[in-house]
Amino acid sequence: MLKKNIGKLHVLTDTVLQSHFSHLDLARMAIDGGADTIQFREKSASTREMIEIARKLKGVCVEAGLPFIVNDRVDVALASAADGVHLGQDDFPIPLARELLGTDVIIGGSAVTLEDAQKCLADGADYVGFGPVYPTSSKLDASSPTGIEPMEKAIKTVPLPFIAIGGIHAQNVSEVMQAGAYGIAVISAVCCQTDPEQATRMLSQALGMGD
Amino acid sequence: MLKKNIGKLHVLTDTVLQSHFSHLDLARMAIDGGADTIQFREKSASTREMIEIARKLKGVCVEAGLPFIVNDRVDVALASAADGVHLGQDDFPIPLARELLGTDVIIGGSAVTLEDAQKCLADGADYVGFGPVYPTSSKLDASSPTGIEPMEKAIKTVPLPFIAIGGIHAQNVSEVMQAGAYGIAVISAVCCQTDPEQATRMLSQALGMGD
Repeated sequence: MLKKNIGKLHVLTDTVLQSHFSHLDLARMAIDGGADTIQFREKSASTREMIEIARKLKGVCVEAGLPFIVNDRVDVALASAADGVHLGQDDFPIPLARELLGTDVIIGGSAVTLEDAQKCLADGADYVGFGPVYPTSSKLDASSPTGIEPMEKAIKTVPLPFIAIGGIHAQNVSEVMQAGAYGIAVISAVCCQTDPEQATRMLSQALGMGD
Repeated sequence: MLKKNIGKLHVLTDTVLQSHFSHLDLARMAIDGGADTIQFREKSASTREMIEIARKLKGVCVEAGLPFIVNDRVDVALASAADGVHLGQDDFPIPLARELLGTDVIIGGSAVTLEDAQKCLADGADYVGFGPVYPTSSKLDASSPTGIEPMEKAIKTVPLPFIAIGGIHAQNVSEVMQAGAYGIAVISAVCCQTDPEQATRMLSQALGMGD
């Protein structure tokens, strides 16, 4: 049992790759489709706007009983009483985030290699976001796809739940889960689909969640 | 006497309007030229980069015995142990920043109108950044120039030190100071000059500071 409520199907809301749906639209549809974690990722809005959106997303997640995680911005997480932050390599340092946010808040770290994952553990992260596992159209990361094997090795070495990210869709979910991933995180597989709710449902079913 | 160390010549380091000097270059030259507050304003770098730069700037300010202020980013201010934050209308909310940062940290708010300045006071700001007073090439603000009179009226009404900003240079400093400003904040008048140190010195002399 994990000490914290870390979901298996993290949907990152994105309004850069698509502009048809708002963060709030995406969160609602993803939750209706079975997502159990919403991560707010926004790089270009003003801090004030980010906080406004984050507070709304937090409200939606509270209603659904799901953890709400903010990507990168510890200030926005604090202002929206987020349940957690996800901190990439170029984001806020994990040890300092832990100091500021306390022990109860979920902190996720990003890893592309075993060494990154070990650093996440040493830094005090609660889970590892590993990838990009597969080629991804989200291009969030300049890194080449890791493939399954390096993730599998990292999972065996680092005693943290691994959330696989990068190019994951309903057809390859089973592969990452068989490699020992605890769950998955998706962006374009939900946000860039014509029906984000249905797209989430396909992933949720592929993960064997819910009904 | 002010309770906190609020400078009279705030130089905002900028690497958008110019790319010849780094934030650190600008801070050093501004301090050598007589600036008594450095404000770090950076919107496009990664959080990790911002923190790295902010920590260096804080070091330079500590050596010089000057307050170091971070624009907008409370997370970066926390990570760099900044002496203060400057929060514009689209930035982090002042009351929440006060709660997170404590009573000793300097918090500046932005105001274009008397009402804004009153809100800064009510929110718990330590000073008001008022402007743009004059037309500015920095285009930081979509607002039209306020001119001197509205600032003068706000200064008489709101019992906080006012730092005038927007289009201020050595030739109009006396006008804003005669209107009751406590000090000035500049961007392009220092950062976009061929000799930022000398440009700062001209302003410092116009303010009657130092030697």
